[in-house]
Parts: sequence; C-alpha cells; structure tokens
Amino acid sequence: MEDLLIQSGKEKRRRPGKSPGKPFADLWTRPGYLIRRLHQIHVGLFLVESKEFDITPVQYGILTVLYSGECLDQVTLSTEVGVDRKTGSDVVRRLERRNLLSLSTSEHDRRAKLVQITAAGRRIVEQMHECMQEAQERLLSPLSAEGKRAFIGFLQKVVEKNNDASRAPISIKSFSEHL
Amino acid sequence: MEDLLIQSGKEKRRRPGKSPGKPFADLWTRPGYLIRRLHQIHVGLFLVESKEFDITPVQYGILTVLYSGECLDQVTLSTEVGVDRKTGSDVVRRLERRNLLSLSTSEHDRRAKLVQITAAGRRIVEQMHECMQEAQERLLSPLSAEGKRAFIGFLQKVVEKNNDASRAPISIKSFSEHL
Repeated sequence: MEDLLIQSGKEKRRRPGKSPGKPFADLWTRPGYLIRRLHQIHVGLFLVESKEFDITPVQYGILTVLYSGECLDQVTLSTEVGVDRKTGSDVVRRLERRNLLSLSTSEHDRRAKLVQITAAGRRIVEQMHECMQEAQERLLSPLSAEGKRAFIGFLQKVVEKNNDASRAPISIKSFSEHL
Repeated sequence: MEDLLIQSGKEKRRRPGKSPGKPFADLWTRPGYLIRRLHQIHVGLFLVESKEFDITPVQYGILTVLYSGECLDQVTLSTEVGVDRKTGSDVVRRLERRNLLSLSTSEHDRRAKLVQITAAGRRIVEQMHECMQEAQERLLSPLSAEGKRAFIGFLQKVVEKNNDASRAPISIKSFSEHL
C-alpha cells in the first residue's frame, strides 16, 4: 500500500485512484475526474470566501455579466453564464427576490423577460470582488505565476474549442439527476 | 460590439463575459468560471459517448475504483471518488439495483457497509473504457500532445494541493441547492 501514499504537507494522503496495477482504475490520470474535483474545490473555496454575502458562483456570474447596467433577456443571460434556461430562470428569480435584479417584459417580444441589475446588485458585485479574487487565487496558489498564466490559457482554449459540444449546456441541476 | 465577437469555426460567437470595459464582468479570465464550463462540457461528452450504457461519470468512477475486486467500505469509496457520503450512498444503491455492485456488512463494524463489484460491473467497466477515453480525448483535442501533458500536470497539482480545502468534498447535489 505504501506506493499509494503521497506526502502532502505533514500528512500522508492517499492519492485517489492512483493504482498502477489496475489498468482501469487510475482516476488520477483522467482529466474528467480531475476537472470535477477542481470544480468542487472551487465552489468550496468560493462559498467559504463569500459566506457573509450568501451568493453562489453562478449567482455571482449572473450579477457580474449584468454589472455594466446592460439590459439582457433571460435566455441570452443564461447562455452567457453557461447555465440552461431553467436554471438561469430559477437563479434570476432568486436574485430578484433579494432585490439584486429587476425584471421587465420586452416590448418587442412579450414572452421575453428582460433582466437588469439594481443599485443593490451592483454594490454586492463590488463588495464581493475581493472575495471572488481571493477564491481564485487560493485555487491556483499551487502554481507559479507562469504556471497560472499557462493553465488559464489551456482552460480558455479547451472551453472555447469545445463550445460546440455544449451548445445547450447541461444544467448543473441535471448533474444530480445524473448521479 | 465587434470586439466581443470571436471567430470560432464558421460562426461568430460571443466570448462569454469578454468585455474589457467592464472591470467586474470578465468571466472569461476567471478560472472558476472556466472550470465550471469545462466540467459541464466533460459531463456532456461523457454522456454522449456512453449513452448506450446509461452510466454517469460518478458511477463510472465508483465502478473503476472497485474494478480490482477490492472490498471497500462506502465512506472510503466516496472519499476516493470525491463525493460526499450521502451522494456516494445514493450512487452505490443505484448501482446495486442494477446488479453492478454488491453490498455487505462489515464484521468489525456493523454500521459500515462494504461494497464490492460484481462480474457484470467489471464487464461494464471494460466495455465502457473506450467510450470514457474517447470523451477525455475529445475534451482535450484542442491541445497538442505536449499541451495535454502539461494541462493534466497542472490539474493534478492544483487538485492535489487543494485537497485540504475540500476535505469534506461538496456534494454535487448541493450545487443545485446552491444555485
């Protein structure tokens, strides 16, 4: 078992799925697994850093997209932030209830809901900016400055080129249905 | 608006949140946002590739960890795959119902549930291996061979060093509660 243990700080910690003798079992080399773990870690860091604001990463994403004051319809907004329509509409409603967004109906298309940020919403974006950056910085703290730049560059490239594969992004909610 | 558009294949596509004039709005430079998108993309690719098997990435992770035949208690198994206990226990029960896992009680600790893979479970891991690899390859296809290696290296480093921050990993389910 000794070879399954790695030194991490003061503790020995089992490297998940690191098991050279098991050809199908090496989770640790699979980007999909690593990306899921990284996503969990980031959400964890974000929620810790921004506890006092009670705002999630997706909510923060929506608020920052609207920060400029631009009025966006709900569907465009959801696409922009990378959530499906149902999730986008749920999150918008939650933020509206807290008076961080306001909703109106499009003059051109009565079915389209237009979303705009409120003064309180703008304030919360400004107040949370530091927490958000802190979460991102803690996330990437294991990398050197050069490594950070390279890593973000890889992330951008992979996300951008794969956009087609997720034209209708999978809802975060649907992950739980897909467990 | 022209500078918000990027050329991607034959289509012009708006780069999400790429808006130099809006200091708080540039989602595109935030690793947290990029990682969430990447995670969505990977789940999407995985579900497409493995449609015929009706197995999710987390289910596949659990099956592969057990592939060697090792008997693991449910809590260790959940930690290994990076899901919380409740989620781990739900997924195990789902796989047991499909006869891909079997459950028993530990002799040493009556409360501990021991999980072992069945022959059918092993078979599905073997059959799905190619699909899983295909999903991972499609995910990283925008990168060169060298880029892939470097990217996976960065992912491993960031996940490994951040393990402490997610000692009790956030449940994928709880993401939906946190929208």
